[in-house]
Amino acid sequence: MEIFQTLYTLRPRTRGFHLITDEITAALPEIRDLKTGICQVFIQHTSASLSINENADPTVRMDFEMFFSKIVPENDPAYVHDYEGADDMPAHLKASLLGCSVSIPIHNGKFALGTWQGIYFCEHRNDGGARKLVITAWGAG
Amino acid sequence: MEIFQTLYTLRPRTRGFHLITDEITAALPEIRDLKTGICQVFIQHTSASLSINENADPTVRMDFEMFFSKIVPENDPAYVHDYEGADDMPAHLKASLLGCSVSIPIHNGKFALGTWQGIYFCEHRNDGGARKLVITAWGAG
Amino acid sequence: MEIFQTLYTLRPRTRGFHLITDEITAALPEIRDLKTGICQVFIQHTSASLSINENADPTVRMDFEMFFSKIVPENDPAYVHDYEGADDMPAHLKASLLGCSVSIPIHNGKFALGTWQGIYFCEHRNDGGARKLVITAWGAG
Repeated sequence: MEIFQTLYTLRPRTRGFHLITDEITAALPEIRDLKTGICQVFIQHTSASLSINENADPTVRMDFEMFFSKIVPENDPAYVHDYEGADDMPAHLKASLLGCSVSIPIHNGKFALGTWQGIYFCEHRNDGGARKLVITAWGAG
Repeated sequence: MEIFQTLYTLRPRTRGFHLITDEITAALPEIRDLKTGICQVFIQHTSASLSINENADPTVRMDFEMFFSKIVPENDPAYVHDYEGADDMPAHLKASLLGCSVSIPIHNGKFALGTWQGIYFCEHRNDGGARKLVITAWGAG
Repeated sequence: MEIFQTLYTLRPRTRGFHLITDEITAALPEIRDLKTGICQVFIQHTSASLSINENADPTVRMDFEMFFSKIVPENDPAYVHDYEGADDMPAHLKASLLGCSVSIPIHNGKFALGTWQGIYFCEHRNDGGARKLVITAWGAG
């Protein structure tokens, strides 16, 4: 077995959910050398997250932003951590609801995703800026 | 270290939460050959998910269905993606809240689960049909 | 590639969210020998969980306890599984919302966490007692 790792920076995106599958596969071309393996994508931030969901209709990603902003409201008077902006504490909570990493099986040098699956970058801040990922893949050639 | 992978199809289940631990271990018998390792189970769908929770009392799984259907309501007029059925957009959201994979440590050829832990297959569609899994295990013999 | 694994018991904590990053790195010193790798931390319980979030201001962790106890209420009359205490069924639900494992990339013998990231132990019971973890790390030296 072999293991590969790279650091990769996502350019700033607007608040919301963004498809990044193609960026990830391009960032670690050694994935092509693995017949059987796993690729983990990890985001080094606490106010953005990663998920896997529908890759076709952008309205799904719009509804994700609507839903998560509804169940994790801004300006809840119960928040104690409120001094970094109204979007800050909700961003931390959304990040843990969705998670800071995804792990995708590799089969014959490609992600073994379902037909409709893609990797979502979930930006929970209004102005999150560039975001750093660690991409690690391991397996057998 | 070695790595093993198999594709496995779950038979159709009713909407709700179902224990599948025994099916997973039977689907990849090479787990028995690993003294120390990890097994990842990945579902190739965006409207079903996987989780790990209580394996004994079926009322826990009933309460899971009740709770997740309450916090992710059907027919929210705010949904834009509403043309694939009232259960479709909620299914996508539940899938990301729960996640599309679980990873379980292997110790002496067996899953190192706690006494009360089991693997849940979470079917969020009313008529989800058969569901495809990728099961990957790696470790040392 | 090599793989290491240890069992580790967390001392009892109060209900809420607790930083355990330093305990984890101390429990598996072989992490230092891995130039490139992954460390998985898995909790063998169904009423406690693990997450990664803000490591500095304790008010973030207070707001996590407030938020998760608000969206997963106790004493919902809809719960069927209600005979193990008012905090039991909510604890199961919170455990699946947050997840029973975290996986952290290793780079040059250290966790490749972001500046503000730490590992949270999330105790969802009022009196959870000691909690068992399985810590597994794999990679190349």
